[in-house]
Amino acid sequence: MAQEDARRSRGDRTRRRIAIRAAELASVHGLSGLTLGQLAGDLRIGKSSVAAVFHTKQELQLAAIAAAGDIFQAAVVAPTSHLPPGLPRLRGLVNAWLRYVSEPVFPGGCFMVATAAEFDSRPGPIRDALAQLRREWIALLTREVEHAQAHGAPAQLPAPLLAFEVDALLAGANIAGNLMDDPGALDAVRRILSTRLGLADIDSD
Amino acid sequence: MAQEDARRSRGDRTRRRIAIRAAELASVHGLSGLTLGQLAGDLRIGKSSVAAVFHTKQELQLAAIAAAGDIFQAAVVAPTSHLPPGLPRLRGLVNAWLRYVSEPVFPGGCFMVATAAEFDSRPGPIRDALAQLRREWIALLTREVEHAQAHGAPAQLPAPLLAFEVDALLAGANIAGNLMDDPGALDAVRRILSTRLGLADIDSD
Repeated sequence: MAQEDARRSRGDRTRRRIAIRAAELASVHGLSGLTLGQLAGDLRIGKSSVAAVFHTKQELQLAAIAAAGDIFQAAVVAPTSHLPPGLPRLRGLVNAWLRYVSEPVFPGGCFMVATAAEFDSRPGPIRDALAQLRREWIALLTREVEHAQAHGAPAQLPAPLLAFEVDALLAGANIAGNLMDDPGALDAVRRILSTRLGLADIDSD
Repeated sequence: MAQEDARRSRGDRTRRRIAIRAAELASVHGLSGLTLGQLAGDLRIGKSSVAAVFHTKQELQLAAIAAAGDIFQAAVVAPTSHLPPGLPRLRGLVNAWLRYVSEPVFPGGCFMVATAAEFDSRPGPIRDALAQLRREWIALLTREVEHAQAHGAPAQLPAPLLAFEVDALLAGANIAGNLMDDPGALDAVRRILSTRLGLADIDSD
């Protein structure tokens, strides 16, 4: 039994390592661009080892999305969970998000931005998984905006619309920064968000 | 000479037809997903005819981007050129853009949204061509926002930032509408833009 446990835990580690690398590659080349062979070469493991844990390309793509969700959670959401709800946490989320694309955590910028447009017109499990990640993120933003508006943030727009706007601006910063090599895009978005959220400044936690 | 002219003009028509279809397919499957063989099958022409006009995949991708730019110009920009500059034309552009993704003109929604994220982390001629299309669009929006602000539109933000915001919101509507089958996304964006641009309503020309 101990031997089998050790084997299973080794398998889990391999699976996790492949899924994380798949998420990183997908942020640059898209989910469609993933292949088991390329991943095996990239990670210097046998193609048969990859094929042993992921039987189909779709399984690999879904694992990459799940890994990306975990990475996003750790990079953007977790670091802000200690902040007071409402404006302070919202500012924390925006700052963490801008760091997440400028460091960058994923080589291709935001994983969601890179893959959502790729699959948004192709119904199926991949699109469903991406839509679910997006729903959770928008729900999180909406909750914080509601709390902020209840405590004095500008309320020209209902919370779900302001949350939609925050997300659209962050995604726009990512595209402009990457596509046009425009390092000013992140500052532009800080300034727009400061105005829209009624923050004196948004560039420090 | 007349014969040669006729042949050339037939070649131009074939080239144009292939480029337009390539732009349509790329809006769903991405520019990376294009293949000469698939296009030939789709258009029911010989693969050799496609290969005769486009020698490489990159040539085909660049032609698809140029065709997409022409289609965008005809669907969104041209119909608003008769409107007075500033707010009326801005409202016209927003309405034309929302129609362009809801009809939709491209089966996958906005061509730029579908392909920008795909190539934004891959430097080269494709990314350059996409960045150029985006620059022209943002410049057009900025010009109209400047004119609008000089004539009373809200000016909490400088024109280039408000133009950036308008574009980010339109792109967000396209992603939300497609990815999450959310038909309310377009209305949400109409409402946000009405507030940000200081328009009483944005849903009629």
